[in-house]
Amino acid sequence: MPDFIVGIDGGGTSCRAAVAARDGFILGRGKSGAANILTDPDTALANILAATQGAFREAGIDERHIVSAAALVGVAGHNVGEAVHYVRARLPFARAAIESDGLIALQGALGDRDGAVGILGTGTLYIIRQAEAVRYLGGWGFAVGDLGSGARLGHAALQECLLAHDGIHEKTALTRALLDEFGNDPGRIVEFARAAHPGDFGRYAPTVFDHAERHDATALSIIRAAAATIDEALDTVARLTGPDDGLCLLGGLAKLYIPYIAERHASRVGQPLADALTGAVALAAARFAAAEVTS
Amino acid sequence: MPDFIVGIDGGGTSCRAAVAARDGFILGRGKSGAANILTDPDTALANILAATQGAFREAGIDERHIVSAAALVGVAGHNVGEAVHYVRARLPFARAAIESDGLIALQGALGDRDGAVGILGTGTLYIIRQAEAVRYLGGWGFAVGDLGSGARLGHAALQECLLAHDGIHEKTALTRALLDEFGNDPGRIVEFARAAHPGDFGRYAPTVFDHAERHDATALSIIRAAAATIDEALDTVARLTGPDDGLCLLGGLAKLYIPYIAERHASRVGQPLADALTGAVALAAARFAAAEVTS
Repeated sequence: MPDFIVGIDGGGTSCRAAVAARDGFILGRGKSGAANILTDPDTALANILAATQGAFREAGIDERHIVSAAALVGVAGHNVGEAVHYVRARLPFARAAIESDGLIALQGALGDRDGAVGILGTGTLYIIRQAEAVRYLGGWGFAVGDLGSGARLGHAALQECLLAHDGIHEKTALTRALLDEFGNDPGRIVEFARAAHPGDFGRYAPTVFDHAERHDATALSIIRAAAATIDEALDTVARLTGPDDGLCLLGGLAKLYIPYIAERHASRVGQPLADALTGAVALAAARFAAAEVTS
Repeated sequence: MPDFIVGIDGGGTSCRAAVAARDGFILGRGKSGAANILTDPDTALANILAATQGAFREAGIDERHIVSAAALVGVAGHNVGEAVHYVRARLPFARAAIESDGLIALQGALGDRDGAVGILGTGTLYIIRQAEAVRYLGGWGFAVGDLGSGARLGHAALQECLLAHDGIHEKTALTRALLDEFGNDPGRIVEFARAAHPGDFGRYAPTVFDHAERHDATALSIIRAAAATIDEALDTVARLTGPDDGLCLLGGLAKLYIPYIAERHASRVGQPLADALTGAVALAAARFAAAEVTS
């Protein structure tokens, strides 16, 4: 059994690491830049190491122990075989497992309890865990999924700008503000949208929620339609979980959506116990302790 | 005044040309490959010339008369300045005007009558003409517009496949058939969608209409939602036109949509008088005869 275990929460904007004792007690934390194993695996590897070194330094543990540690790495793209093989073979640890960023978030939010999380951010993803079985709903990305996501909200808002410009829908404060931002030139909106990544659309999501709070008809209609897609997904989640299972909504838009989702779901939503990094450490402790016992 | 006038209907898959006498009487027609002035202006120029040569040959007129002819060229992208300047400077005619493919379609469909056309194909676009004033609604492209288009229908159908795969929506014949086509592997649908051009999505639109005709619930819901966006656009068109103005729906999906659009619009829709190529010739005859009179 390793002396130390490491949990990694690797995200598209930053990577966080925690080093813990064998029982999962966290001794130190570190942070570095983006860890996207799909788009830039070498930078992800460098940032996983940098965040781990930071965690060891904070814990006052000699960094030479990194190579003998066991790590659980939570990242987006864990189901894309090639990227996972490439990264796993190059990680600096004695043993390592790669799991989805969603699974470590679920473990952090629910602890060892059965249940589900909905992650409502730039994308949307639902994860259900029943004993050992883990099931994913959604999370297919902006091109043909991610209903209710920040990217979809921003995209819908820009689309409404063009409809308002053409006089097909009435202008409201939301579309006036966004059209203003593009110099009232619909061609510039089209240009922006053609080049936009999901995150670029997603940056407009908070604006849509702001206007909805002030009862803007366009913003309300966009968010109600999006919330209906979240309700449908949560209906499926409810069918696949028990009545006493946990349910948490995570991600940047989770709190913002609560007033708009159906009462049957909102009333079940609980506070997450801890964050994804804590979840990664807990999974690492369970995984490598269990492996020790069974091997 | 030129001895001959030429009308060009340049499209993304083929280019058609007609040569006519000064009064607009068509003497011969020709056809060649794609004429997309935005993505491949040099090929467009070559195909405009080839189609024109074909028309002159069919009419039995010496091709040396091409350089003294006056032409009206209808193409997509007529409002993108750079492409228009490049192409206009290199056209083989003594005089030439470049207009939108939509305007020549409107002229063909309505003749000299005021009114509007909706073009329902891979994209969607509405054009209103009142005396000399021409106004466009929609036509912003797939990235953030083209509601109700074939591309949008196909995209919605693939999105429904993922929702059905996840158990969020019930499977129906449409989603079963499409999932089958992708080997029941949602990852392949995502891959397809990430690389797809609007035309690639649009190829699934006829399948959606087929299933709707057989009362498939998914297909009906996709098409009803799309038809509602067309109704909204046509409501705006109706506000901007007179009660006796013409209204035609053109494009590959026009006939298919008729059973699904609101009665208030369907009852106003008339048969087009002629095609876009005829419209290009008529506009050429009017334009260059008028110019002769006023200059």
